[in-house]
Amino acid sequence: MHSDKDIKQMEEGGKGSIAHELAKKQKEISVAEFFEKNKHILGFDSRVKSLMMGVKEAVDNSLDACEEADIRPEIYVKVEKIERISDSEDVYRISIEDNGPGIVHKMIPNVFGRLLFGARFHALRQSRGQQGIGISATVMFGYITTGKPALVMSKIEGTDAVAWKMNIILDTKTNRPLVTNEEPFSWEGKVHGTRIEYYMKGKYVTGRQSIFEYIKNTAIVNPHSKITFDDPEGRRHVFERATESMPIKSKEIKPHPQGLEVGDLQKMAQNTQQKTLKAFLKNDFSRITDRIAEEILDVSKVPDKKVAALTWDDFSALVKAIDIVKIMAPQTDCLSPIGDTLIKKGLMHVLEGLRPDYYAQPVTRPPKAINGNPFIVEAGIVYGGEIQAESEVAILRFANRVPLLYQPGACVITKAIESMDWRRYGLEQRGGKGKPYGPAIILVHVASTKVPFTSEGKEAIANLGEIQNEIHLALRLCARNLKSHLNKKGRKEKTYAKFEIVQQILPQIAGKSAKMLDRPVPDLSRTISKIMNVVWVDPKSTYDAKKKIKSVAYTVYNYTKAERSFRIHAELPKEAVNETLLGRYFMDMNEEGKANWEVLGLPPFTSAKIEFDLIGDMADTFSESDVYLSGISTAFVMGADALPGDWGIKGMEITETELDMADEAEEEEEEDPDVDDDDNKRKGGKQDDE
Amino acid sequence: MHSDKDIKQMEEGGKGSIAHELAKKQKEISVAEFFEKNKHILGFDSRVKSLMMGVKEAVDNSLDACEEADIRPEIYVKVEKIERISDSEDVYRISIEDNGPGIVHKMIPNVFGRLLFGARFHALRQSRGQQGIGISATVMFGYITTGKPALVMSKIEGTDAVAWKMNIILDTKTNRPLVTNEEPFSWEGKVHGTRIEYYMKGKYVTGRQSIFEYIKNTAIVNPHSKITFDDPEGRRHVFERATESMPIKSKEIKPHPQGLEVGDLQKMAQNTQQKTLKAFLKNDFSRITDRIAEEILDVSKVPDKKVAALTWDDFSALVKAIDIVKIMAPQTDCLSPIGDTLIKKGLMHVLEGLRPDYYAQPVTRPPKAINGNPFIVEAGIVYGGEIQAESEVAILRFANRVPLLYQPGACVITKAIESMDWRRYGLEQRGGKGKPYGPAIILVHVASTKVPFTSEGKEAIANLGEIQNEIHLALRLCARNLKSHLNKKGRKEKTYAKFEIVQQILPQIAGKSAKMLDRPVPDLSRTISKIMNVVWVDPKSTYDAKKKIKSVAYTVYNYTKAERSFRIHAELPKEAVNETLLGRYFMDMNEEGKANWEVLGLPPFTSAKIEFDLIGDMADTFSESDVYLSGISTAFVMGADALPGDWGIKGMEITETELDMADEAEEEEEEDPDVDDDDNKRKGGKQDDE
Repeated sequence: MHSDKDIKQMEEGGKGSIAHELAKKQKEISVAEFFEKNKHILGFDSRVKSLMMGVKEAVDNSLDACEEADIRPEIYVKVEKIERISDSEDVYRISIEDNGPGIVHKMIPNVFGRLLFGARFHALRQSRGQQGIGISATVMFGYITTGKPALVMSKIEGTDAVAWKMNIILDTKTNRPLVTNEEPFSWEGKVHGTRIEYYMKGKYVTGRQSIFEYIKNTAIVNPHSKITFDDPEGRRHVFERATESMPIKSKEIKPHPQGLEVGDLQKMAQNTQQKTLKAFLKNDFSRITDRIAEEILDVSKVPDKKVAALTWDDFSALVKAIDIVKIMAPQTDCLSPIGDTLIKKGLMHVLEGLRPDYYAQPVTRPPKAINGNPFIVEAGIVYGGEIQAESEVAILRFANRVPLLYQPGACVITKAIESMDWRRYGLEQRGGKGKPYGPAIILVHVASTKVPFTSEGKEAIANLGEIQNEIHLALRLCARNLKSHLNKKGRKEKTYAKFEIVQQILPQIAGKSAKMLDRPVPDLSRTISKIMNVVWVDPKSTYDAKKKIKSVAYTVYNYTKAERSFRIHAELPKEAVNETLLGRYFMDMNEEGKANWEVLGLPPFTSAKIEFDLIGDMADTFSESDVYLSGISTAFVMGADALPGDWGIKGMEITETELDMADEAEEEEEEDPDVDDDDNKRKGGKQDDE
Repeated sequence: MHSDKDIKQMEEGGKGSIAHELAKKQKEISVAEFFEKNKHILGFDSRVKSLMMGVKEAVDNSLDACEEADIRPEIYVKVEKIERISDSEDVYRISIEDNGPGIVHKMIPNVFGRLLFGARFHALRQSRGQQGIGISATVMFGYITTGKPALVMSKIEGTDAVAWKMNIILDTKTNRPLVTNEEPFSWEGKVHGTRIEYYMKGKYVTGRQSIFEYIKNTAIVNPHSKITFDDPEGRRHVFERATESMPIKSKEIKPHPQGLEVGDLQKMAQNTQQKTLKAFLKNDFSRITDRIAEEILDVSKVPDKKVAALTWDDFSALVKAIDIVKIMAPQTDCLSPIGDTLIKKGLMHVLEGLRPDYYAQPVTRPPKAINGNPFIVEAGIVYGGEIQAESEVAILRFANRVPLLYQPGACVITKAIESMDWRRYGLEQRGGKGKPYGPAIILVHVASTKVPFTSEGKEAIANLGEIQNEIHLALRLCARNLKSHLNKKGRKEKTYAKFEIVQQILPQIAGKSAKMLDRPVPDLSRTISKIMNVVWVDPKSTYDAKKKIKSVAYTVYNYTKAERSFRIHAELPKEAVNETLLGRYFMDMNEEGKANWEVLGLPPFTSAKIEFDLIGDMADTFSESDVYLSGISTAFVMGADALPGDWGIKGMEITETELDMADEAEEEEEEDPDVDDDDNKRKGGKQDDE
């Protein structure tokens, strides 16, 4: 092994040969120098981007820290223009403050002034930061561009705890922090938290790749946090909490044995507390039970010897055995998906009052794993209404709850969307490839213990087949839901037209003729029901934003000659349900929020009203048009769909091919939509004659 | 500042608060651990790719070392399958040996067993390796996957020098080399050079992203090197040198002042040997003359004080001044473009006997710079012949003479090609966007002192506007040349047909009728020339592959009634020219290889033959159809084009808009190609009557 001293010696010891000439140049490169020179890998390659990256790294850290400490994040971001330099760059002061657990005094310098220093690198759990690079890189580029150190203040909870503040510079030559003006102080009104202030040359922009956009999108997928942003124009943007409930906290898991390199296994064995091989397997890995451990030993033919005595051949035999033995997929409580209700909520946020036509039921796929790293794909689509119709659909990309604003082209999410045929789901698309057009916003979130980013800038997710496939499935399930809504809408409009005629025009005619003939107006209800011969469901709803109460009413008219019994089904946002408010016909609800109401023996020419209230943050995420009816032949139902077999099975296990078949089947069916209606009437008529 | 000891302390010193809990976890991450966990950033993310990356890193280093030492590279690569593990992976032994300058004994461990250690990181010059990561990463992944250390042998020139061999492992925890079995030995028959043997789990594949493809393409753009490859099937592939002449050696330059961060300037000032500011500016930067230095001082209002006394405000004032003062663009002798002849040669190589129709004149653009890093774009196109016509065009991407095989989608080269309208240049393309179709191969090379790769895997070039624009211009100039060839070809075929009729059928008719009438056959030459009324150029060539001699002959027939004087122009591959072989009509040739021949007073009905030989490696890169004629109105010329104004100005300074105008102009002109011919005849006829 060679110390830097030896190398120094060599540098003098040149003998004139080319090799010696070259030797003189061979030097160690500090990791800081490396990243300083390869700015673009960290995303600091332009003035515009640098400004955004810095804020992003700081906010990501704040969110991570708060969540680990079970604190509802409250984050303050301020960007001030300090000095104008040119049209292409200015000097800004950026301040980010959080209400996180704070950082222990002695650790502060390394956290903010040293690359590759962090708490989450070795942890197998979903988190935004991982490498311990981002915030220190920010401090580094801040200093390189402005010569001003970062000011860090932090206070940890506890009666005895004082707050500390200090100036920090990252010394690129050594990749170590240089601290000045370190001093304790009492932070008025602060229980715990951290604040960083740094200066950076940058260019503040608005629009698609702006700091504002990053913060807004962060709020979308982190609805449990409140973020306040003071922009350089002095405007304040407050992103209020959309929910008080914290996301499911992601647990740290032990490594899953699958996909381990022999060398990794060896390294783990060197660091284990366990004495024997079997104990090592059982206790240091997830999903290895007593039985599995036994099996691995059998298959590998390695005896249960002392860990210390294991040879390389043992390790490689074990790795081979692990590939053969059937081991459960990694658990996923290390992941924290956003969940469908919050995705809906989030999309509402991003629309800012813009009223879309429909929120397709978001999809959360079942977990899959790559090299023992579990991952989950979630997707959601909003459609129509006031969303711009002529342009390409907007795509919102997220990884571990962090919005991705740059390098869409290199990202698997974009590739997945562009390689799908959206025409079959009612969106325009040239030749069934490339970005779809239409009034829609598509949101995709990939959560994993290790998101394979294409570079440390974390701007795009590498194009791995397993991930692309999951995104496809999630999106297609969403898209199917959207499509069935569009069909339903079409049918409904037809029915309304018909209803109007019968309900309003007939009585008028009757009235007129009666008047002319000077006869009493006849009771038309039998006639009407004879013509209509339907059970008619009419959904209505009102939302009280102040009280956060959504009142929903389904009026069900029985326009048939027989008594009707039936059930109404709707999936409710659980968080918004208070069973006492679900009305008289309410029957039951499962833990997914699928609720059922039952109406028994509704007489002809009468109606029943199913009324219920949803309350709280999530109340307004329910769309009353997602209602289903069962117990009556679809022949008689109008205004609601028959309960589908896969009702509300969102992330359902389904293969690409199964989806293909389903899609094609439906497409044929729809060739001429009118056919259905005619069928209905005919069937209806028949039944009537019996 | 905090030593690892302090941190250790902290790790014990937990007080139970969350902050303290987190503090326990905060650790330093070794750069090796970082890259081990982020394999995909180095390109080691799949078994197939890993195998390729290892070879690539080793070969790139060998080429760099040889070129720095002015040695014609001779590289041997062997990949052997040692153990079969499964369908998806095997264990391979990979050996790479070069004839480079060798590595000084004491430096060997760090070069191969330590990340971020290298000779080229701080140098401003074009080289393949830069970060000192690649080969050490290879050693690391080799060990992690197989547990076997790498074996390195190296011998430096010099009588006293013995060869050294040793086993090397990279300790990921410390990022330091662990050396075993270090010993000197006498390396039979080896003057100097280095050999590395390592084991790695991988999957050997053939095809577009294979080791073979990498080596082949490397040979293409490094025709001065000989590469021998023994593949796992035991086949040997030898890529012979295409030329004996070394590429222009790239010089190391001083940093160009433009685009420097204030912090960079400060750091340079701290390390300078210079005493005063002015001396510092003049001697430590390129392109700063006495006058420029003065000017910078004036504009910045910083007096010429001691460097040590400079404050941050001084530095930022200087940086601002540097932006204002007009400074020459960075020199480009730090770059080593491939050059048009070698690009042609290279494309011939890749075709392996496949005979294309035409080599478009390759284009080497004038240098541009990004943040003081100069870059050059080169492009070439081969077309037609036996190249597959139905599929997408093949794209060969290169950066600093290294082929890029992965992540085409993320690469600026692909983006540039897809965003061009190729239809106007005779290639198919759906809607004038996306990959063009047709029988063509497109080669693009980007050379720079700092190629902005999207990640350390060096698989794709970041999408910077300046680069994309240069690629556009280079490709369009190539494409224009291709198109004019296609047009020429079209016209030529017409002429041939005409020529045949007049030349062969007329005499036959005359002969027959003469026989019938029993009269002597009349002399038709006047008649023929009356009908033809052209100067007809007929190019022929033969190539003797053994002697490497290309014999070219232009037969010029004067089928007009007047005496004709004219000149023939062709651009020759200089390397292949021996003036004594350029024949009797030869006049002169400029340093670019543009040669001129002159024929004076060629009588009617006679012909002159311009003959010359090209000799050597580059002889066959000359395509005789690229010939021009001057001195005669185009009205009379057939078989050759009139000398264009911009003749052979390849990388010419031209803007996008200028190109647009040129293209459109020509497109109109061509609407009905026949028009030209008719014109010619008419004009010709008129002249004839005088």
